[in-house]
Amino acid sequence: MRIALDAMGGDRAPSATVRGAVEAVRDLPEVQAVLVGRREAIEAELASCNAPEGRFEIVHAEQVIAMDESPVAALRAKPNSSIVTTAGLAAAGRVDAAVSAGNTGASVAAVHKMMRRLEGVIRSGIAVSLPTLRGQSILCDAGASVAARPEHLYQYAVMASLYAEYVVGLPEPKVALISVGHEEAKGNDLVKEAYPLLKADRELNFVGNLEGHDVYLGTADVFICDGFVGNVLLKLIEALGMGILGRMQQHLVSAAPELFKRIEPHWQAVADMQDYANHGGAPLLGINGIWIKCHGASGPLAIANGIKLAARFVENHVNDRIVARLGGAGSSSAGEVSET
Amino acid sequence: MRIALDAMGGDRAPSATVRGAVEAVRDLPEVQAVLVGRREAIEAELASCNAPEGRFEIVHAEQVIAMDESPVAALRAKPNSSIVTTAGLAAAGRVDAAVSAGNTGASVAAVHKMMRRLEGVIRSGIAVSLPTLRGQSILCDAGASVAARPEHLYQYAVMASLYAEYVVGLPEPKVALISVGHEEAKGNDLVKEAYPLLKADRELNFVGNLEGHDVYLGTADVFICDGFVGNVLLKLIEALGMGILGRMQQHLVSAAPELFKRIEPHWQAVADMQDYANHGGAPLLGINGIWIKCHGASGPLAIANGIKLAARFVENHVNDRIVARLGGAGSSSAGEVSET
Repeated sequence: MRIALDAMGGDRAPSATVRGAVEAVRDLPEVQAVLVGRREAIEAELASCNAPEGRFEIVHAEQVIAMDESPVAALRAKPNSSIVTTAGLAAAGRVDAAVSAGNTGASVAAVHKMMRRLEGVIRSGIAVSLPTLRGQSILCDAGASVAARPEHLYQYAVMASLYAEYVVGLPEPKVALISVGHEEAKGNDLVKEAYPLLKADRELNFVGNLEGHDVYLGTADVFICDGFVGNVLLKLIEALGMGILGRMQQHLVSAAPELFKRIEPHWQAVADMQDYANHGGAPLLGINGIWIKCHGASGPLAIANGIKLAARFVENHVNDRIVARLGGAGSSSAGEVSET
Repeated sequence: MRIALDAMGGDRAPSATVRGAVEAVRDLPEVQAVLVGRREAIEAELASCNAPEGRFEIVHAEQVIAMDESPVAALRAKPNSSIVTTAGLAAAGRVDAAVSAGNTGASVAAVHKMMRRLEGVIRSGIAVSLPTLRGQSILCDAGASVAARPEHLYQYAVMASLYAEYVVGLPEPKVALISVGHEEAKGNDLVKEAYPLLKADRELNFVGNLEGHDVYLGTADVFICDGFVGNVLLKLIEALGMGILGRMQQHLVSAAPELFKRIEPHWQAVADMQDYANHGGAPLLGINGIWIKCHGASGPLAIANGIKLAARFVENHVNDRIVARLGGAGSSSAGEVSET
């Protein structure tokens, strides 16, 4: 299995990316890592961390798209960037999957531009893992596009449910629509029209509408919403989770520094659960290939988790399962660039 | 000044409501409290807490709408409920303002049905206070309706900005649209079309689009979104804020009980800031009258804060200010029932 990694993507690249790849291949004997980016920088990193021989291949890409660059302008100005080169490898089928912690907008736009959608899929969606009170849940769409139609929400539900079951390991995942009340008649037009589509599919374990608090409580395994709502929720959850703990920590450190020092190891265990940078990445579901987006702040562990997630995605034939469910509903069409 | 209180509304009514009213009138010498609900129960509570003489009037209402009743069915079945009676007093101008911690859906529906909108206002919106890293911000609409048009978002911005400045005490409030990126071209059609409307109004301190994390960081004083997004965000923030702290507390208590006991007073000070039940309530902006919705879990302090907020709303002529800004843009029309 060949997995490409955008070695220049993320706040801590190429150190965190290369080290993450080294960690991953140690645990995944079947994987060959294809590191994309500036050859010299990657070689130096590999040398500095005693990387095993014969497990890495480097594909040189001269340009790097910065984390804060405007996606559209960056793609135009940097055709030889590591993101575009990585997407090109995936689009050409030269790798089984690709992983990037780089500029989200640019990577989603590059993938949408270069890769086709799976047969029957009319809109791809980003599926993120959220830490919840019960463990973790999947949210889709986290912002691949902003203007969903009911049939898009239905497809997100099918794809995210298969992903949750076969990659994340949540058996018979409960799927819910995010709304403002539990009843079928509650919600905006989008949710009201999507509801019967999800309900009619007997292969989905659809539990109906759930509300904002359920996303934290983890009342369902898979939460479906349009990408505008999903993106706002995701960014809020990231900031709020870490922010509240940070505020409490600051207060305790200044009010009772000695006590906090003693309690700190216990504290850190819970804080780490809440930290998104420790999670393994988010696939763009529905494309004809596998693209895993890792958090921009990913360290080596998160990159390694992203690569392992990509490997499970390949091994468990998730895209074949998606086509088996959605193919025939429509024909494959060229990717559209839908930016957020 | 006469302020009506739905004495039967909320999880802890009538004890918390009556005690809250007693607290409020002690601090507000100009206020006469009109307690609406079961006369005997209210009299018993007043007697039990040494309420000052001559500051209370009771308006009997036999029926009580439970917190979990379906709003539409409850309003139909219980025309003599405390919520409907309170709304009737406000609609008839027999009180200057009304406060309820009761069933949100029922109270919003009752107000929409019985009270007209202010001249020029085409859609009312709920404005909630959110604790942020910098203090507090206002979010509008938190769920009065679910299908906003761009001109609704513009009106929410004008009304919530006046409310933030003249009631909450945030001078020259920065107003932002909630979106998925900062640029004017980012967002869904609703946000993109609302943007120029807010930008064109020189009296608004419009700072552009902000994202989900900004809602927690408190980057703006007023955040504007449609009621679907606002309701989902609000419920998530409530659950997540308390939930994360609760999880951490549980872990620390079980891992280091003695240490936690010693750190607990410091802990509680920060936890209280995050607790919505301590906040003062949320006005339904745009109606021809004043209706403050308190959290269902409100204790006496939160009820008292809600009554004080209502008094500031009256004193500072917020509705006159709204009409001065929006009146003439359209004519007042009969209220519509918009449920969420």
